[in-house]
Amino acid sequence: MKRRQQKKRDVFSESLELHEKFHGKIEVHSKVPLTNRRELSLAYTPGVGAVCKAIYQNQNLAYKYTLKANTIAIVTDGSRVLSLGNIGGYAAIPVMEGKALLFKKLADIDAFPICFENYHTEFADEIKNIAPVFGGIALEDIAAPKCFEIEEALQDIGIPVMHDDQHGTAVVVLAALLNACKVTKRKFEDLNIVVCGSGAAGFAIIRMLKSIGYDPNLFPPVNDIIVCDSKGIIHRHREGLYGNKYKFIMSEETNKDGKTGTLADAMQGADVCIGVSVPDIITPKMVRSMKKDPIIFALANPSPEIHPHDALLAGAAVVGTGRSEFPNQINYALAFPGIFRGALDVCAKRISDEMKFAAAHALANYVKRPRKDRILPRVLNRDVVKAVAQAVREAAISSGCARTI
Amino acid sequence: MKRRQQKKRDVFSESLELHEKFHGKIEVHSKVPLTNRRELSLAYTPGVGAVCKAIYQNQNLAYKYTLKANTIAIVTDGSRVLSLGNIGGYAAIPVMEGKALLFKKLADIDAFPICFENYHTEFADEIKNIAPVFGGIALEDIAAPKCFEIEEALQDIGIPVMHDDQHGTAVVVLAALLNACKVTKRKFEDLNIVVCGSGAAGFAIIRMLKSIGYDPNLFPPVNDIIVCDSKGIIHRHREGLYGNKYKFIMSEETNKDGKTGTLADAMQGADVCIGVSVPDIITPKMVRSMKKDPIIFALANPSPEIHPHDALLAGAAVVGTGRSEFPNQINYALAFPGIFRGALDVCAKRISDEMKFAAAHALANYVKRPRKDRILPRVLNRDVVKAVAQAVREAAISSGCARTI
Repeated sequence: MKRRQQKKRDVFSESLELHEKFHGKIEVHSKVPLTNRRELSLAYTPGVGAVCKAIYQNQNLAYKYTLKANTIAIVTDGSRVLSLGNIGGYAAIPVMEGKALLFKKLADIDAFPICFENYHTEFADEIKNIAPVFGGIALEDIAAPKCFEIEEALQDIGIPVMHDDQHGTAVVVLAALLNACKVTKRKFEDLNIVVCGSGAAGFAIIRMLKSIGYDPNLFPPVNDIIVCDSKGIIHRHREGLYGNKYKFIMSEETNKDGKTGTLADAMQGADVCIGVSVPDIITPKMVRSMKKDPIIFALANPSPEIHPHDALLAGAAVVGTGRSEFPNQINYALAFPGIFRGALDVCAKRISDEMKFAAAHALANYVKRPRKDRILPRVLNRDVVKAVAQAVREAAISSGCARTI
Repeated sequence: MKRRQQKKRDVFSESLELHEKFHGKIEVHSKVPLTNRRELSLAYTPGVGAVCKAIYQNQNLAYKYTLKANTIAIVTDGSRVLSLGNIGGYAAIPVMEGKALLFKKLADIDAFPICFENYHTEFADEIKNIAPVFGGIALEDIAAPKCFEIEEALQDIGIPVMHDDQHGTAVVVLAALLNACKVTKRKFEDLNIVVCGSGAAGFAIIRMLKSIGYDPNLFPPVNDIIVCDSKGIIHRHREGLYGNKYKFIMSEETNKDGKTGTLADAMQGADVCIGVSVPDIITPKMVRSMKKDPIIFALANPSPEIHPHDALLAGAAVVGTGRSEFPNQINYALAFPGIFRGALDVCAKRISDEMKFAAAHALANYVKRPRKDRILPRVLNRDVVKAVAQAVREAAISSGCARTI
């Protein structure tokens, strides 16, 4: 334990040194030559005037002639950063720069952090207003429920706007679940699932697995989901749901039989438990109360809801966590680089349901022969990103979300 | 004439090709290594958590640990772009990318374009709200009078906010005028100046030369300025001035003797005429009506208020224009890279008057022996940028605008 703490301290002090040495992690580079007057007249005045005029005539030409073609904004107000909570726009900068690195390294996307100092009620308008230079917007680390509201408000602005913490996670969970079904010989449509945690990731997972707000013909939903939050099972008759639109939706669309009680009650007889909540909340006893060969995804960070060894000892057939040192890392970095790459490649107008499902299937299918300790490909693999991007491109075209320039 | 048009067409079509080939001109690069899991844990989670916490404790540490140290936003709403007018946020992107190239090439500054789709009355608030990742904000190509209002509203947000079209131009004009005085053996304080044009650049020039709103001890103002707009001379009793705060200020602070009439009337007996208006508005006859050895800065783009040859033939002792093919190019690119470089070097809280005057003197002094055809250094010279930056740094410190991290 002491040794692990020592190692952690090292990572922290070394990270501080790295950030100090380089003053952050990203910089702006020139893509065009600029060494003489002629080159300046092409990149800047007077030549640039022709480019401005062309875009003024046809706004879509911004994709042809400007950075918009390959650039996204990573937008946050720092209201829910990693395990740090509401630390605000300034303290969130290093995380957003880190995400920008991932976008670049994995998907050749130019991502620039936009950290809002304060959350305004006009936040969505403010984001919309800076959209011209961006071909997409990744919302990051914004607390629920405002992350839902903002994303919803921005769906029709003409470029893809996606909250990665929600849909990146949901896509990877769906992919993991598809392969876990193969491994445990289950039918996806028969699954009874417990989702522990009703925040951004939880809600997106529930929506995707139960096709809430999605086209029901797109993909058959699971049989049932029971959602637990800090107060226990969410059911139709629980008090105080009307104040929260999203919990109200969950209460209407999940828990067919109107079960009540605690997380332990919810887990009895379930096929799957997906934790997106807090460490150590799932006990071996709860796992033993589930159906035979249960599937456990314990995604809390930095420590999972149950240690994977404990889950396996209690009889879990497949266990996934958010950590890279265990098998089956369920990390949204498997999804968001490929989704945005595919979207940018076709100058997409939005991220459609079809594109998200296509990404999940591409991820699942990337693993040719799923095993209980390999239901997903490894993170940080550019070939995975390419496979996801191709599926997303095709789905964008077939669902009418591609833009013709 | 035909040949010149052919050459222009070439520049335009070649510029379109260049922009299409590269999809714009700037991209985001990584400054840190990211090739293995260890490096990822330093640049991103978990290591980055320590950096976030440090900044959460002390917001100023964003300068130490993030891109803020060397990054500025180039902000526009595209309401007054080059000679193109109000073309909006999308069509302005290529110009902003071009400026980003200049910042990078001349001053090693990472500049990122932020193009607002619409002008809101809350524009200043919206700019303030995205300030966290930026160490400075260059306002660009925003129409008067809103460019004055926005800049004023953003002076106290804790980072330098400067409208280049105003102050970049004013600083270079002041430098040019200081050396033109040496060449024509005039005393700066005795100058009687006509400024033709009362837009963004005109107002900033007038403010700087007459110390309007500046500390009067900083620098002695010229004797008098007469401002002309499209309706002729601005004087205290002209109708309709109350509707425009900035024209009202000009009417109060210029034209001591209450002269009335046209530009031709204004220029009689003046030492200097500075044009920031429209092509071909100054005639040789007007130049001949000025004092002996007059100074003419004809800065209208793309064509000056009077062709420099015509001005010289009419008796002008020193002529400057905005064009690179004539001597004495008065271009704000001589000022803004060094001003922002110097400001970023000391994590400046604002651009003080002292910093602008220091930049102008550094520019003027860079020319060791001014001649009538060499009152300014050449544009695109990194040594000039360094000299300006050093003067600005020192002035920032002495005027209390530097930030201690």
